Amino acid sequence: MTDKKQIPYKIYLEENEMPKQWYNVRADMKNKPAPLLNPGTLQPMTADELGVVFCEELVKQELDDTTAYFDIPQEILDFYKMYRPSPLVRAYCLEKALDTPAKIYYKFEGNNTSGSHKLNSAIAQAYYAKQQGLKGVTTETGAGQWGTALSMACAYLGLDCKVYMVKCSYEQKPFRREVMRTYGANVTPSPSETTNVGRKILAEHPGTTGSLGCAISEAVEDATSHEGYRYVLGSVLNQVLLHQSIIGLETKAALDKYNIQPDIIIGCAGGGSNLGGLISPFMGEKLRGEKDYRFIAVEPASCPSFTRGKFAYDFCDTGMVCPLAKMYTLGSGFIPSANHAGGLRYHGMSSTLSQLYHDHLMEAISVEQTSVFEAATKFARIEGILPAPESSHAIKVAIDEAMKCKETGEEKTIVFGLTGTGYFDLVAYEKFNNGEMSDYIPTDEELAAGFAGLPKVE
Amino acid sequence: MTDKKQIPYKIYLEENEMPKQWYNVRADMKNKPAPLLNPGTLQPMTADELGVVFCEELVKQELDDTTAYFDIPQEILDFYKMYRPSPLVRAYCLEKALDTPAKIYYKFEGNNTSGSHKLNSAIAQAYYAKQQGLKGVTTETGAGQWGTALSMACAYLGLDCKVYMVKCSYEQKPFRREVMRTYGANVTPSPSETTNVGRKILAEHPGTTGSLGCAISEAVEDATSHEGYRYVLGSVLNQVLLHQSIIGLETKAALDKYNIQPDIIIGCAGGGSNLGGLISPFMGEKLRGEKDYRFIAVEPASCPSFTRGKFAYDFCDTGMVCPLAKMYTLGSGFIPSANHAGGLRYHGMSSTLSQLYHDHLMEAISVEQTSVFEAATKFARIEGILPAPESSHAIKVAIDEAMKCKETGEEKTIVFGLTGTGYFDLVAYEKFNNGEMSDYIPTDEELAAGFAGLPKVE
Repeated sequence: MTDKKQIPYKIYLEENEMPKQWYNVRADMKNKPAPLLNPGTLQPMTADELGVVFCEELVKQELDDTTAYFDIPQEILDFYKMYRPSPLVRAYCLEKALDTPAKIYYKFEGNNTSGSHKLNSAIAQAYYAKQQGLKGVTTETGAGQWGTALSMACAYLGLDCKVYMVKCSYEQKPFRREVMRTYGANVTPSPSETTNVGRKILAEHPGTTGSLGCAISEAVEDATSHEGYRYVLGSVLNQVLLHQSIIGLETKAALDKYNIQPDIIIGCAGGGSNLGGLISPFMGEKLRGEKDYRFIAVEPASCPSFTRGKFAYDFCDTGMVCPLAKMYTLGSGFIPSANHAGGLRYHGMSSTLSQLYHDHLMEAISVEQTSVFEAATKFARIEGILPAPESSHAIKVAIDEAMKCKETGEEKTIVFGLTGTGYFDLVAYEKFNNGEMSDYIPTDEELAAGFAGLPKVE
Repeated sequence: MTDKKQIPYKIYLEENEMPKQWYNVRADMKNKPAPLLNPGTLQPMTADELGVVFCEELVKQELDDTTAYFDIPQEILDFYKMYRPSPLVRAYCLEKALDTPAKIYYKFEGNNTSGSHKLNSAIAQAYYAKQQGLKGVTTETGAGQWGTALSMACAYLGLDCKVYMVKCSYEQKPFRREVMRTYGANVTPSPSETTNVGRKILAEHPGTTGSLGCAISEAVEDATSHEGYRYVLGSVLNQVLLHQSIIGLETKAALDKYNIQPDIIIGCAGGGSNLGGLISPFMGEKLRGEKDYRFIAVEPASCPSFTRGKFAYDFCDTGMVCPLAKMYTLGSGFIPSANHAGGLRYHGMSSTLSQLYHDHLMEAISVEQTSVFEAATKFARIEGILPAPESSHAIKVAIDEAMKCKETGEEKTIVFGLTGTGYFDLVAYEKFNNGEMSDYIPTDEELAAGFAGLPKVE
């Protein structure tokens, strides 16, 4: 489907070709994602209710499922110019090594200090907090990518940033912590003595090393109990997918520039921020009946929300303080097995993506982590980039699809999202290099235990 | 000096604008750098003598001080396309934050998995080893940047790669080690039991944590005692400056594209690979009398080869097995104080740069490390990139020069080399963040002890 123009190794957009609006895929969805519910009343959350926790403008974006395009404020466009456009890379070396007729492209989001695409939404959320006259924002972080991105955005805007970092990560990933501190963030190991919920948990479980659910609860309590603070979140929410649409819009502009029509678009899926952002503008074309694409979400076999989860209302956090969301979920009590490396460990999935998957507009596949690290290592050696474990899920399936093309002789064009780098994931790589990495697929009984915790909602 | 065309935040060259030749600044030097000497005979090293240790083609490049341009082989050009061109960034945000009339640009070499410019020469050296039909190469690494770069290059070309990593780094920087292993390199803590010199040192100093000098000796012994291996080195040598000229050539092409004429060009200086590469084409213009520039080499006050060293023949390694080079040196026995963080700890300096400095074609300045980390942190927060400690030496002086412009009102154009990222230097950042970083300037007595070890050469 490509024309005769020589495709460079990396396609960079010019500054004047960069998107100036975000695209809201919900506007083109016939079946809209179900609304967030108040866990007490089971009624849809109102803007006022959400405004206690989130910034006003972000609440508007969260609730708006009809406006297709949102102007990106100039200050965010300027920030984007510091690390965007990200390159769309033609994987010539990988194609050659696989000896496949497929044409492989990847959108590489790792060339910024946060190491991932998370910065795209962090700067937007921090900007609206600043615009609202707030003093600062709070958040939680597990592995640290989102916390790092938010710290960078807040440092740029002169906003206070409080990060609750799951205690075991805080201790095991001191480098992530130090990047955040270098960007001026206040990083607290969670559970902590600074919140009621933290003190309660510490009293009940003195030796606990924390969990993401607890860190969320602490961050929310901190925001709502301090004048001038709001809570922000790096994935799952509609607003995050909106901001992350910059990934897909740039990808599409770069492909259009060379008249390239992708056949398959692949992304890894945890909460859905990267996948949703990458596919949004292409999905819009599909929803409007203009073009057709295969979309493939790739998730870990150890945390298979799409492929083995239920499509139901569930709590967004294990502390059950946040609104209920309708999504593919394993139950808010589900925790991946201890041998699971890297991110993509959230029990649920973006409501928007869940609806699209439910409507058969998208496929999903789960892969085991040793095969993911095999693909990661192969990719690193051939394409020169050490990928994040999360991103490597997409690499694995992109390679599999390219090998299918080799069998059939089809010259398909495959695009995948390379969300980030693995520079802070070397403990996992070491395990793999030493042959000590293992796989674990949860049993049906284990999943049933998670589903048992689902709230009863019509 | 800039025209009215709007300068983007990042200037990327198109693939067809990328340099296809390296530039050899020695060709335009009236006073050529002094030749390497055989430590036994004190006669200039012949190609045959050098060929025992180094690859043939690299020996030719090392000795050739008259050919101005060398064609870059197609396979290296292809590899460069995977991570080059590196962006020339207009530091709009930094200029604004400093409120300076100066225009600041930096050439950012950190956007590749090796994290620095080292990859530019690693791929070239590995390519020539492969072309010569060798099985593999050996090298030493301290902090690990060079070892990582070489591992990547060897993985790409299917060449065996043995890295002797200073034992204390091997133990303290397990992540660097794992990146190298992920790229298939054989990483050995030095001193080791695998070489005679390693066994000898271990017998004499059972508890030693190693030194760069010892690691060099092991790598050289390994290469010369195994059929099909040669030793490669990441800095100091003329061949390395030749390969690194790609940095300066791209910088110049990007500046020329927008009709920008720099006034000051600044680079950090350890062995000189980055500085030499960045300034080469500009220095060529100066040497040929076509244009004038101020060049500033920035070195740590704790390892001040240029500013306090002697211009003399010295051993390139502490083991005194390598040829003698004429350079600004602190003596091959000099070791920076224990509180020195990051690289730039080599006792000597590239012969080419030493000659240029001796001939007053270049300035040098030394800076203390707490001021370097202050500049690094400021830069990270404003420009969004966490810089390597080495690179931050250049940042420090670029900011100082920009502040001078603020005082005088001059609109100078400042270009500096941002050689790499600090993702593996967070132990040093942590020290700084905790207020535990200190400075140390060697006393005259300490330097005198280093000079006492200089060989007696006419």
